[in-house]
Amino acid sequence: MPLPRTWRADLIAGAVVAVLLIPQSLAYAMLAGLPPQVGLYASLLPLLAYAALGSSPVLGLGPVAVLALMIAQALGGLPAGVTPTEGALVLAAEVGLLLGAAALLRLDSLSSLLSVPALRGFESGATLMIAASQVPVLLGSRAAGFTLPELLLSATQGGWGLASALWGVAAVAALLAARRLRTRLLARLAPLVLLVGAMALSAFTPAAGGVAQVGALPSLALPLGLPRLEAALWLQLLPAAALVALMGFVSSLAVSESLAQRRGEKLLPAAEMRGLAAANLVASVSGGMPVAGSFSRSILLHEAGSQSRLSLVFVAVFMLLAMLLLAEPLAHLPKPVLAATIVVAVLGGFSLRHYEEAWRYARAEGLLMAAVTAAVLLWSIGAALALGVVGSIALLIQRTARPHVARIGRVPGTQHYRNVERYAVECRPEVVGLRIDESLVFTNARGLSDVVLAHVREQRASIGAPQRVLLLMAPVNHIDVSGLTALQELHAALQVEGLRLEFSEVKGPVLDRLKAVGWLERYDVSLYLSHHEGIQAGEHELRPSQADRDAPGQL
Amino acid sequence: MPLPRTWRADLIAGAVVAVLLIPQSLAYAMLAGLPPQVGLYASLLPLLAYAALGSSPVLGLGPVAVLALMIAQALGGLPAGVTPTEGALVLAAEVGLLLGAAALLRLDSLSSLLSVPALRGFESGATLMIAASQVPVLLGSRAAGFTLPELLLSATQGGWGLASALWGVAAVAALLAARRLRTRLLARLAPLVLLVGAMALSAFTPAAGGVAQVGALPSLALPLGLPRLEAALWLQLLPAAALVALMGFVSSLAVSESLAQRRGEKLLPAAEMRGLAAANLVASVSGGMPVAGSFSRSILLHEAGSQSRLSLVFVAVFMLLAMLLLAEPLAHLPKPVLAATIVVAVLGGFSLRHYEEAWRYARAEGLLMAAVTAAVLLWSIGAALALGVVGSIALLIQRTARPHVARIGRVPGTQHYRNVERYAVECRPEVVGLRIDESLVFTNARGLSDVVLAHVREQRASIGAPQRVLLLMAPVNHIDVSGLTALQELHAALQVEGLRLEFSEVKGPVLDRLKAVGWLERYDVSLYLSHHEGIQAGEHELRPSQADRDAPGQL
Repeated sequence: MPLPRTWRADLIAGAVVAVLLIPQSLAYAMLAGLPPQVGLYASLLPLLAYAALGSSPVLGLGPVAVLALMIAQALGGLPAGVTPTEGALVLAAEVGLLLGAAALLRLDSLSSLLSVPALRGFESGATLMIAASQVPVLLGSRAAGFTLPELLLSATQGGWGLASALWGVAAVAALLAARRLRTRLLARLAPLVLLVGAMALSAFTPAAGGVAQVGALPSLALPLGLPRLEAALWLQLLPAAALVALMGFVSSLAVSESLAQRRGEKLLPAAEMRGLAAANLVASVSGGMPVAGSFSRSILLHEAGSQSRLSLVFVAVFMLLAMLLLAEPLAHLPKPVLAATIVVAVLGGFSLRHYEEAWRYARAEGLLMAAVTAAVLLWSIGAALALGVVGSIALLIQRTARPHVARIGRVPGTQHYRNVERYAVECRPEVVGLRIDESLVFTNARGLSDVVLAHVREQRASIGAPQRVLLLMAPVNHIDVSGLTALQELHAALQVEGLRLEFSEVKGPVLDRLKAVGWLERYDVSLYLSHHEGIQAGEHELRPSQADRDAPGQL
Repeated sequence: MPLPRTWRADLIAGAVVAVLLIPQSLAYAMLAGLPPQVGLYASLLPLLAYAALGSSPVLGLGPVAVLALMIAQALGGLPAGVTPTEGALVLAAEVGLLLGAAALLRLDSLSSLLSVPALRGFESGATLMIAASQVPVLLGSRAAGFTLPELLLSATQGGWGLASALWGVAAVAALLAARRLRTRLLARLAPLVLLVGAMALSAFTPAAGGVAQVGALPSLALPLGLPRLEAALWLQLLPAAALVALMGFVSSLAVSESLAQRRGEKLLPAAEMRGLAAANLVASVSGGMPVAGSFSRSILLHEAGSQSRLSLVFVAVFMLLAMLLLAEPLAHLPKPVLAATIVVAVLGGFSLRHYEEAWRYARAEGLLMAAVTAAVLLWSIGAALALGVVGSIALLIQRTARPHVARIGRVPGTQHYRNVERYAVECRPEVVGLRIDESLVFTNARGLSDVVLAHVREQRASIGAPQRVLLLMAPVNHIDVSGLTALQELHAALQVEGLRLEFSEVKGPVLDRLKAVGWLERYDVSLYLSHHEGIQAGEHELRPSQADRDAPGQL
C-alpha cells in the first residue's frame, strides 16, 4: 500500500531533520551541563505533544542552543543533593505551566515587548557566549563560566590538553570543509558522519587516550515520572523558568511566523503557545530538558518539504531508532568533537550585519542591540533581557516625548499644505496653521502649549498678527487624558493672547471620544473637514454641533 | 520716597500670602510629625533662595501638604538617636542635591513620566490621607498611621477626648462658616484670625484643660548648620528623597506652568528645577523641612497681584515679623485647631470630578487614577507613584499595540480616501488601499502582516483579485527597527501572494530614514506623493530614486 503523497513528503523531511537533530540534541544537552540522554529524551515525546496541539507544520521542536545556555545558567546554583537532570525536569515543568497559564490568560501579546533589537542583540550575545563556552571543551581545558570574565578568569587557572585540542581542531576543520561541499545532502549529513566516524576512531584506536568522552548512557528506557516536587527548588528556578518560557516562545514564534508568511499559511500564536506548553510539560515527565523551536531545524523542515506536523512524528521515530543504535558506541564519542559541532553550528548563524543595519537606520536602536549583546557576555541573561525590554520602552517613550509640530502653508495652486521649513509655501497672516505629527499623550503633552506658542510668535514676527490657530490633526492617532488636559491649557493660553483654537481633519476614533464628553462644545473649538477649508474660512461656517460624522467626506 | 508701583503690588501680595502661610507652615510641620518651628524656618530663607534662582513670579514656595505627608512616612522608620527634625534636614538636603543633579543633567523632561491621571490620582489620595490622619488629632485621639488600615487599627485601641473634640469641631465649623463670607479678604484672614483667637482663648481661660497644645518654641534664632552627615541615614532616606523631589518638582511645575500660560509668560522648567534645588538646600542648612510650590498659595500670589519674585521676599519678611510676635502665644495653641485648618484646607481642593471626567473620556485612565488613589490610602506613597508611572506606560503601550489599519476607498468625485467601513466609497479591485493609523514600532510590528493580509483576503472575496497593496503612510510618524523588519516581512508575504507593496504620502522624517539605508530601492517599493495618484497609477510612474525631497508638493 503506497503512502499518501503528503505522508511521503513528511517522512523524508522527518529523516532529514533527524540527521541534524541527533548531534544537536547530544551537544545542547552537554552545553546545558546535562547528560547526553536528557537531550535525546527531549527529542522524543515532546515532539509528539507539539504535533498534537501546535499549529505550525514546520516548527523544528526540540533542544535549542540559546535555551541550553539559559538552562546551564539556571542550574548553576542548585542546592546540594539535586542533580542537574532533576533541576532541568523541574525547569521544563515550570516552563510548561507558565506557557499554559499564559495561553489561558491570552498573554501571547506580551511577547511583543521584546523588540527586534532586543531579540537579535540577545540571540547574538547568546551565540557568542555559547561558542566561547565550548572553546575550552574543544581544547581540553577545564575552564568554565557563564560570562566572559568568569570564563577568562578560570582559563588562567587551567591548562589545556594536546590530544583533546587535536580532536577538536580536526573536527572544526572537517565541519568547515563539509560546508563547502556542492551536494547539499552531503553537507547536511556531515555532522552525523563526523560523529559516527569519531566514535569509531575513538573506540577502535588508542587515539583517544586522555580525551574526555561522552560516557556510557544509562538504560534508554524512558524515565517516565513526575519531576521533584520541592517548593524551595521550584521557587528558586521560577525566575529562570519565566525567562526560558519567554525566550522559547518568542524565538519559536519568530521562526514559525516568518515561515508561515513565506508559505502563505496563517499561524495562531495562541495555538503555538499551547503546543509549546504541552511539549515542555511532556518533557518534564519523560526525562527531557526544556524545548522550543529551533531556527535551523525549522528552516530545514520547510526546505525538505514538510507538509504537516506529521513530519515531527517521523522525526521522533527516527530519533528512537538512532538512540537504539547509538546507545553503545556513544560512550566513546570524544567531547571535543561534540563541542566542535556546537561551535560551527552556532557561529554559522552569527553576523555583524544586524548591528550595522540597525545602527545605520537608527543609532539608538543599534546601540541598544549592542548593549544587550554585551550584557549577555558580561553580566547575565536575565539582566540582558531586562535591559532589552526596558531599553526598548525607554526609546519608544523618548521618541514620542518630542512631538514634531510643523508650521504648514499652502503649496501654491493646490489644496495641499506642507512644512514651511521644507517647502516654498504660502501662509495667510490671520491663521497659524500647524500640523501635530504625533499622538497627544502624557509623554509629550506638557510641551504642547510651549511649542504652539513659539510658532505663533514666529508667525507674528514674520508675517503679521494672527487671529486663529488651526491644528491639522490627521496624524494624531490618540489623545489620552493628559493630552486632553494639554489641549485645555493650550485653549486657555491662546485665549489670553486673543487667539481662537480650531481643529481640522480630526480622525474618526479621536473625534468620537471628544464628542462623547462634549469637549468641542465646551471649549467652543471649531472643526473643519479639511485643513484647506479651515484656512480659507473667514467665518466659522461649520460648528461641531452641526458636524455629522456619518456623512461622507468627513474624517 | 514712594515705592515703585510693582514693589507696592509685590508688598501687598506678600502680605496676603503670609497670612495664609503662617497657619499652613505650622500645620504642615505638625502633619509631617515635626515641631512647628521647622515649618516656620522652611518659610524664611528658602523663599529668598527661590527668589534668587527660580523663574516664576507667582510660585507660592514653602511647606506643602502632600510633601508633608510624604515626609511623615519617610521619617517613620528613623534609627534610634535621630530626631525627626534631623531626619527632615537630611531629607531636604537630599531633595536639593537630587534636583540640582537633575537640573545639571537636564533631566527635567523625566517629570513627563507622571501622567495627568497618575498625578491627580496621587494628589487626591494624598489629600484624603492627610484629612484622615488629622481626624484623630481633631478628636483628641492618639490614633495614628500612614495608611487607612493602620489608622483604623490604631483607632480601635485609643479613645478620644471630649475637650479636644469640642475645640476641633468648633474650629472646623468656624472655618466652614468663614468660607461663606462675602468679603474675600475676611474669608482669607479667617485661618489666621482663628489661630490668634484660639491662642488667646486657650491662654487666658481654663477651657484648654486636657487639650494637646503646640507647646513653647525654642529660641527662634535660625539654627544654621549642616545636616547630620551619616552615610547610613542618608542612604536610608534616599528613596523617599527621590519621591519627594519628583513630586515636589512635578506639582510645582504644574501650577507655575498653568499660571504662566494664564499670565502670558514663558516658564523655564530647568530654572524652576534650579530654584527648587536651591530652596531645599537652603532649607536643609537653616532648620527647615523640604519645600515646594503650593497650589493654593500660588493662585493667591497671582490673584493678589504679584509682579515679580520680590513678593516672595516680602512673604519672608512678614513671616519673620509673625514669628517674633507669635513665639510666646503659640505655646498655647490647641492642636485640634491646627488640625482643623489642615482638614478644611485640603478637603477644599478634593473633588470627584477629575475621576468622573477621566472615566467618561477613557475608562482605563479613570481606573488608573482611582487605583493610584487607592494605593496611597491602602499601601504606600512609593507604591502609588510607581503604580502611576508603570500603569501610564502600560496603557500607552497597550494603545499602540493594536494598530488601526483601515481599508480606504475614494469618496466619489473627490481625491479624498476614507474608511470603507464608515463611508460609502469606491474601491478599485486591482489595488488594496490601506491607511496605517499608527507609528510602526515594536509594540505593534509583529501583527502588521496579519492585519494587512486579512484586508487583502477581504477585498479578494468581495470585489476581485488585487495586484498591488498601497499603504497610505501619512499617519505613520515613526518606523523603528522592529517596524522596518515587519515591513520587510510584509513585503515577503505579499510577494508569495503575487502582490506588489507600495507606499503613498510618506512623511519627510520617515522618508529620510528609509532613504538613508536605501530601503525603498532594495525592496523595490514604489512611492507616490498622494494616495490618489497611487491608486490611479496603472504603471509605477514615480520611482523613489527619482523623487526629489526638496521639490514642493512632496511630503
